Amino acid sequence: MAFQGKKLMDDPDDAVTDFIEGLVETYPALHYLDGFPQIKVVLCSDISTDKVAVISGGGSGHEPAHAGFVGEGMLSAAICGDVFTSPPVDSILAGIRAVTGPKGCLLIVKNYTGDRLNFGLAAEQAKSEGYKVEVQIVIVGDDCALPPPRGIAGRRGLAGTILVHKVAGAAAEAGLPLADVAAEAKYASEMVGTMGVALSVCTLPGQLTSDRLGPGKMELGLGIHGEPGAAVVDLLPVDPVVSHVLQQILSKDTQYVPITRGSRVVVMINGLGATPIMELMIASGKTVPKLQVEHGLAVDRVYTGSFMTSLDMAGFSISIMKADEVILRRLDAPTKAPYWPVSVEGDRPPTKLPVPIPTSCSRKNDEGSNRPQELSVQGRILEAAIEAAANAIINIKDCLNEWDGKVGDGDCGSTLFRGAAAIVEDMRNYYPLNDAAETINEIGSSVERVMGGTSGIIYSIFCKAAYAKLKENNLPFVESRQWADALEASITAISKYGGAKAGYRTLLDALIPAASILEERLAAGDEPTTAFFLSSEAALSGAESTKNMQAQAGRSSYISPEILASVPDPGAMAVATWYRAAALAVKDKYQT
Amino acid sequence: MAFQGKKLMDDPDDAVTDFIEGLVETYPALHYLDGFPQIKVVLCSDISTDKVAVISGGGSGHEPAHAGFVGEGMLSAAICGDVFTSPPVDSILAGIRAVTGPKGCLLIVKNYTGDRLNFGLAAEQAKSEGYKVEVQIVIVGDDCALPPPRGIAGRRGLAGTILVHKVAGAAAEAGLPLADVAAEAKYASEMVGTMGVALSVCTLPGQLTSDRLGPGKMELGLGIHGEPGAAVVDLLPVDPVVSHVLQQILSKDTQYVPITRGSRVVVMINGLGATPIMELMIASGKTVPKLQVEHGLAVDRVYTGSFMTSLDMAGFSISIMKADEVILRRLDAPTKAPYWPVSVEGDRPPTKLPVPIPTSCSRKNDEGSNRPQELSVQGRILEAAIEAAANAIINIKDCLNEWDGKVGDGDCGSTLFRGAAAIVEDMRNYYPLNDAAETINEIGSSVERVMGGTSGIIYSIFCKAAYAKLKENNLPFVESRQWADALEASITAISKYGGAKAGYRTLLDALIPAASILEERLAAGDEPTTAFFLSSEAALSGAESTKNMQAQAGRSSYISPEILASVPDPGAMAVATWYRAAALAVKDKYQT
Repeated sequence: MAFQGKKLMDDPDDAVTDFIEGLVETYPALHYLDGFPQIKVVLCSDISTDKVAVISGGGSGHEPAHAGFVGEGMLSAAICGDVFTSPPVDSILAGIRAVTGPKGCLLIVKNYTGDRLNFGLAAEQAKSEGYKVEVQIVIVGDDCALPPPRGIAGRRGLAGTILVHKVAGAAAEAGLPLADVAAEAKYASEMVGTMGVALSVCTLPGQLTSDRLGPGKMELGLGIHGEPGAAVVDLLPVDPVVSHVLQQILSKDTQYVPITRGSRVVVMINGLGATPIMELMIASGKTVPKLQVEHGLAVDRVYTGSFMTSLDMAGFSISIMKADEVILRRLDAPTKAPYWPVSVEGDRPPTKLPVPIPTSCSRKNDEGSNRPQELSVQGRILEAAIEAAANAIINIKDCLNEWDGKVGDGDCGSTLFRGAAAIVEDMRNYYPLNDAAETINEIGSSVERVMGGTSGIIYSIFCKAAYAKLKENNLPFVESRQWADALEASITAISKYGGAKAGYRTLLDALIPAASILEERLAAGDEPTTAFFLSSEAALSGAESTKNMQAQAGRSSYISPEILASVPDPGAMAVATWYRAAALAVKDKYQT
Repeated sequence: MAFQGKKLMDDPDDAVTDFIEGLVETYPALHYLDGFPQIKVVLCSDISTDKVAVISGGGSGHEPAHAGFVGEGMLSAAICGDVFTSPPVDSILAGIRAVTGPKGCLLIVKNYTGDRLNFGLAAEQAKSEGYKVEVQIVIVGDDCALPPPRGIAGRRGLAGTILVHKVAGAAAEAGLPLADVAAEAKYASEMVGTMGVALSVCTLPGQLTSDRLGPGKMELGLGIHGEPGAAVVDLLPVDPVVSHVLQQILSKDTQYVPITRGSRVVVMINGLGATPIMELMIASGKTVPKLQVEHGLAVDRVYTGSFMTSLDMAGFSISIMKADEVILRRLDAPTKAPYWPVSVEGDRPPTKLPVPIPTSCSRKNDEGSNRPQELSVQGRILEAAIEAAANAIINIKDCLNEWDGKVGDGDCGSTLFRGAAAIVEDMRNYYPLNDAAETINEIGSSVERVMGGTSGIIYSIFCKAAYAKLKENNLPFVESRQWADALEASITAISKYGGAKAGYRTLLDALIPAASILEERLAAGDEPTTAFFLSSEAALSGAESTKNMQAQAGRSSYISPEILASVPDPGAMAVATWYRAAALAVKDKYQT
């Protein structure tokens, strides 16, 4: 059953003029003739009449073709018909008059009867008007899907036309006379073959969409006006589709294009209007190696994008043009046409090789860390603190899970348990405990490896930020002042990347008061162990105060205040627990 | 019911790596790190480490963002996650290591928790690795669809991010130190607001498509990861949709962006993946005047295209950024990033005014033609020939229709009748009969005005080509030799534009033998009237021979040979009829 497609437009009858209005708003170097709605001609604002003008056009619905290819070095003007309708003679004539100087103009016309006749009549009219110009028509017929032409209809002009535009525009820009520009365009049009594949049919503005192409089907060898393709087949992955299309274009039976093993080619992967760039690039990535390896061709340039579309059709076409030095020079010549792809030109290696991944430049990684044979005083204290902290977390696993079950997804205890258990084991095996900074760094690595999820990454950030801060001084022995600074750096990093602040009911509500009291007591001249102990009390009361806080992040933000008030934030309680265990262990060690 | 969307890809798990392969095939200045499938990093091949590196990235599915914006003057590297999934820390770290030199690097991160945390940890890790760099994170939160942020989630990074990339990339390219590059990026991110509208939901590779958004519905205020938008409403024309979006972004209540009446702005109209350029341009064309007139803003630049997409979603977003001299300079700075739009920069007039249509430069049109008071000898003969030819067509109208009914659409006689009747009437009123060339031109105009269709345009081409040829000599009296040349020129033009040749069962099968005999007899020294008469006999036998021809063009090409053999081609018979009538009239006139 046909259905109503969705379009971003107002009156469907105004679609083309509205498009042109937007185009010239976007590109200030483009103008249009004041002849709406009949005359729809887009032209360069800075027409140089001492060069051959290059004009193309046809029915609309193929955007950006042709108006998007107007610009210095490509088209001088584009004549836009209504959707899928050839422009009238008056419109073409107005375009010719507007841009043609003494060196004349070249009309590039796609091989559709309406376009041939209307452009033809306009050309004859222009000649008869006394313009001292010669107008030539290049029939671009690059369609390789139809069987060899029996009669007039011949092959349809498809995306290959865009390459012909570029060759002609660059030849004109180079100052060549009309006959030479026309000859280059004609030659280019004979060197290109195209075939397309559609995944959907297109919807004309204001009309119903045909459901000709059912689910799981695709159409091979389409035209660009919604006409049925050469065959409907089951949807295939892109790899065999590309293979088939390339076989068809390069077929030795039809000999549509004079491309043989060893030829140099350029290739255009063209989206049909509703095809995302991801899919076009995937098709390009499949096309190039096949041309190189299976067909023995050198691929000099790859143009991937939506150049010649069929309204909102999903699918793509591949155009292959035989390349030589002149054609490459024309294709590479600069142009101000907005839709000609940039950054495509340039030498390309025969095979794309990825760049090796750089490794860390820090020295540590070259060696790998090791648990020292003998621990220093600080090493022993650090070991005791880490062990106490980890064990405290291991002990309250179930309790944390229970709290988290009320306000989150119930795995806070299990997640932290994994981290704590890994720390205990890794410390025994290889933490370089005499180097506090490196040990903190290793804790971060242990946690990152086993914990996963948001809390894993937040604890990793905590450790990495502390490590970076501790490394600034690069001393074997870490003073209490530096520990306080490291804690501060960790809090800043977590807040910055996680986006939470004090009062958001997160682990920061334990860490922030802890850091603040540590700072305060050290500044007041307290013993470091005392300052650490007092700081841990602040962490604990901070964590308990989260009961009164509204959650601002994570799943807890969807929980009612009544439930939230019944439990503290498990993340904050976990921090308070390990921090207090560490403080007590340090105090204990110093006293013994 | 959910359904299976159609995609051009192979294994959905390889979608991102396959995309990157195609991207680097297309753009030879882009490379990637050899870490597939985990590490997916696209970088410039010519990294200049004497400048600040600018890195962005995030989940894939937003192509061309971010990899398509890698290039000198914009991003140094893009870190690609899987579709809609933040890249892992190792991947980000590999990217930082690959492009960061002594001046450091800036990470630009969209405001999604996964991106913030993963980029954050990578940043801390990079700092701790001893790279003498400072890494800063700019949180781009340009989403104006959600109510003012209550907590951490805040506004999501949308298409406005691309403008921030450009500002940062250009600032880095200008040689600024890291702190200044970061400050410019931060400032730019605070100046931009975005809101989107979706016409369809997107399909993740390998997954089913949700039919959340029914026919006739659209979604306002979408995210770019397929998450539901702020509201579902009935599909509206683009004009009110644009109005609503602009109101929302520029709302005085939310004050998301510091843009007030009189501000200068740049605007980005962004397609969401499956939106054709025609529709995006239509939206641009609606947006700019509304910003100017309804909101009192000066629009300095318009960027229209698909920059930050959601796979194959149909719809668009509008981003508005407050502009100043520095921002404009950064946006206008050249870049080699393939997807940054070119030809957008440059002064734009306050209002787009179309260019007046040029009129014909031929003198004739200035005056308008008139039937002369008194006819010359040639004028009288020409009048007799035209009158006889036209009347002959008028007389065989029904016969032509009958033949055409068998092999075409049955209106050949009626169409030609309209032309003939108009010629008779127009000749009486204003054909300048003493000037043969201009008279032929007027016949072409009469025919073009009333006949329509393919035959109308072919007869117009016939007359215009003859006129242009006759004008070459510009003599009041036309010799028989020149008539023959004009006929030849007409045949060439019809054949060229119409694509038919001798034997295609068209009017050329009468014209070609006529021209050939005319030429031959004149060369043999025959009297011109005799040569014309003999030529008209050749036309008639040529037309009759079409019975034995297979049609190659038009509707007749679908008719069986048996039916075709029963009638001559009506177009060819019409030519033979009027041509013979004219020849007889000329002969008659000369004899009297």
